[in-house]
Amino acid sequence: MAVPRPGDRPVPRGAMGLPVVGMVGGGQLSRMTHQAAIALGLSLRVLADSDHDSAALVASGVTLGEHTSLADLRALAQQCEVVTFDHEHVPGPLIEALEQEGFDVQPGSVALRYAQDKLVMRERLAALAVPVPAFTPVASRADVEGFARHVGWPLVLKAATGGYDGKGVWVVRDVAEADEVLASGIRLLAEALVPLRRELAAVVARSPFGQAAAWPVVETVQSDGICVEVIAPAPGLSEELALSAQSLALRLADELGVVGVLAVELFETDEGLLVNELAMRPHNSGHWTIEGARTSQFEQHLRAVLDYPLGATTLTAPWVVMANVLGGDRPDGLDERLHHVFARDPALKVHLYGKQIRPGRKIGHVTVLGDDLPALRARAAAAADYLRSGTWPQ
Amino acid sequence: MAVPRPGDRPVPRGAMGLPVVGMVGGGQLSRMTHQAAIALGLSLRVLADSDHDSAALVASGVTLGEHTSLADLRALAQQCEVVTFDHEHVPGPLIEALEQEGFDVQPGSVALRYAQDKLVMRERLAALAVPVPAFTPVASRADVEGFARHVGWPLVLKAATGGYDGKGVWVVRDVAEADEVLASGIRLLAEALVPLRRELAAVVARSPFGQAAAWPVVETVQSDGICVEVIAPAPGLSEELALSAQSLALRLADELGVVGVLAVELFETDEGLLVNELAMRPHNSGHWTIEGARTSQFEQHLRAVLDYPLGATTLTAPWVVMANVLGGDRPDGLDERLHHVFARDPALKVHLYGKQIRPGRKIGHVTVLGDDLPALRARAAAAADYLRSGTWPQ
Repeated sequence: MAVPRPGDRPVPRGAMGLPVVGMVGGGQLSRMTHQAAIALGLSLRVLADSDHDSAALVASGVTLGEHTSLADLRALAQQCEVVTFDHEHVPGPLIEALEQEGFDVQPGSVALRYAQDKLVMRERLAALAVPVPAFTPVASRADVEGFARHVGWPLVLKAATGGYDGKGVWVVRDVAEADEVLASGIRLLAEALVPLRRELAAVVARSPFGQAAAWPVVETVQSDGICVEVIAPAPGLSEELALSAQSLALRLADELGVVGVLAVELFETDEGLLVNELAMRPHNSGHWTIEGARTSQFEQHLRAVLDYPLGATTLTAPWVVMANVLGGDRPDGLDERLHHVFARDPALKVHLYGKQIRPGRKIGHVTVLGDDLPALRARAAAAADYLRSGTWPQ
Repeated sequence: MAVPRPGDRPVPRGAMGLPVVGMVGGGQLSRMTHQAAIALGLSLRVLADSDHDSAALVASGVTLGEHTSLADLRALAQQCEVVTFDHEHVPGPLIEALEQEGFDVQPGSVALRYAQDKLVMRERLAALAVPVPAFTPVASRADVEGFARHVGWPLVLKAATGGYDGKGVWVVRDVAEADEVLASGIRLLAEALVPLRRELAAVVARSPFGQAAAWPVVETVQSDGICVEVIAPAPGLSEELALSAQSLALRLADELGVVGVLAVELFETDEGLLVNELAMRPHNSGHWTIEGARTSQFEQHLRAVLDYPLGATTLTAPWVVMANVLGGDRPDGLDERLHHVFARDPALKVHLYGKQIRPGRKIGHVTVLGDDLPALRARAAAAADYLRSGTWPQ
């Protein structure tokens, strides 16, 4: 049920008397959340930068504006029962200002800070005794050299804020390389380069009421810092580690007061699990849930931020594989390639985001489900490659 | 691939160079087709009567206009690669006019006539030796009495055009009741009231290329002429009858030149299958495919009208049950009821159409999937009932 908001502002309702949700950002996460909202009869209002944004192309309730403008954020919030986000780039003080004005913002500013600032997140997680890679804030060559004496070279430098898809992350082999990054002047932390077996993600959702739900832990495969493949459930993961990853994510959701979807990116190492990143929104590691889980992360995010009871997270097939479709060198010809992948794999599920095709940009994803994991991985990879390049793997 | 259109009219393309599809009618079928279009990266343009129409509430590309206006239809068609329909009410001559102007309309006017006019359909099916209930056109009491001498009372009178959801169908017990219907002056046919075991539906899709795909045959349960429940696959249906129903639907799609989804409503009788109705669009008997089949009828309809290769129609669970949610006496309180059904059944999939709630109106549907058919039927019925009435069955 709707929590009454401070003051006498009436809570706007949409069609059928059902809630209106505002989402800041018009990317593919908003686009896919809109699909989920349509099913539930909810109304989604999107604050987008441009009417060419992924979600703006397909949603009726689009407001053009800046996510760095309090006036624009407020104009969105005034139409909505709750405001949520498709990215982490809304400045914390603006979110606090909305909250102080009595708007319901989920996740709230207190939680969201841990998804916006990697240094604050690392410090909080360390304080909670959650295993993270060794880290330290660095502002100078001396800081980096001092840290390198403990963890050795190469090490990782990360922008404390604003990074995504491998942007804002640099593996540096020596002081000279570190100097180049330091010269950018951005706020940095240094991290040990952890020898890892693979990367995992534990995606959960939590409602204001405190109900929580976890999807099976997945393996995420990265290439050049970009997620290219997600396998659900993570193959060969012991039940013990899987439960430990889910418990950790659920505990973090609770400790940090997250409302909505929380994706915890993890390193699996010989010494156990380390937390790499947090995202407090639907996440690339959860796109497989659209077909692969009884409740998708997009539906669940809506249910969570509106404090509806959460949906079942059970798998709909023994294995689910998602592969991201990246833009290739040829922006044209996608329609023809789509014909070919449909002809080759009638059970493939294709998701395209309406985005301008640029090399390396995530422009969509494909999902396959079934019993034979190696075959599923090959099918997903072949389709994603073909949609990018127009050539089938040999 | 796009078929070049006559004349020099450029074929408009949407985001990513992918096709733009026009859909006439802003009802729930357009709404759910829009969800499917979003996934595929396609752009849907909807011609809606009002911005409160089910699809108009959620789609960006909405044109307000009349489906009986050639100018409005043309304005839609000019934006689109292909035009299709969410209902059968566009006058045939207008569809022919669009075709003559070189627009690609699917299904075309020749096929669509059989979904628009029950008398024309019955005559054509009879000529194809497809079993249908005994029928005759009737315009007078004498006609009805003559027919009654062959088939007995009660018999069925049907409006040749324009009926839906039990509207335009009258079971009449005697001449006096027939007179009342005849007095309306609408074009009628009379049909034998067939003793039936149950109703089935065979839903298939066909592309211009001639590719066709069939979903498993389903049982449809009606109450007061409105479909209330669909069970996939039809329980206890022999493989022979199932194949015969699918073959019949595929044959009709081919013979009638249907492009897109064709739903064939069937009576199962002691003497075999009889065709009741045809619909050439996504149909209520196919809503279960959203979660219950690898390719939904909405995605398939888009793929078919655009001449993309069709998708796999395999079930995603042993049993799938859909129940329609009808409007109840209380238009308010749906949000609270939604909380309760989510809490009671976390695996239930809810679809609400954004429509004004009126008693008996289809305002949504719910779907459940699994192994235990009696339990699934009970869950679907309970949820649909509760969303309507706010009370759980005892």
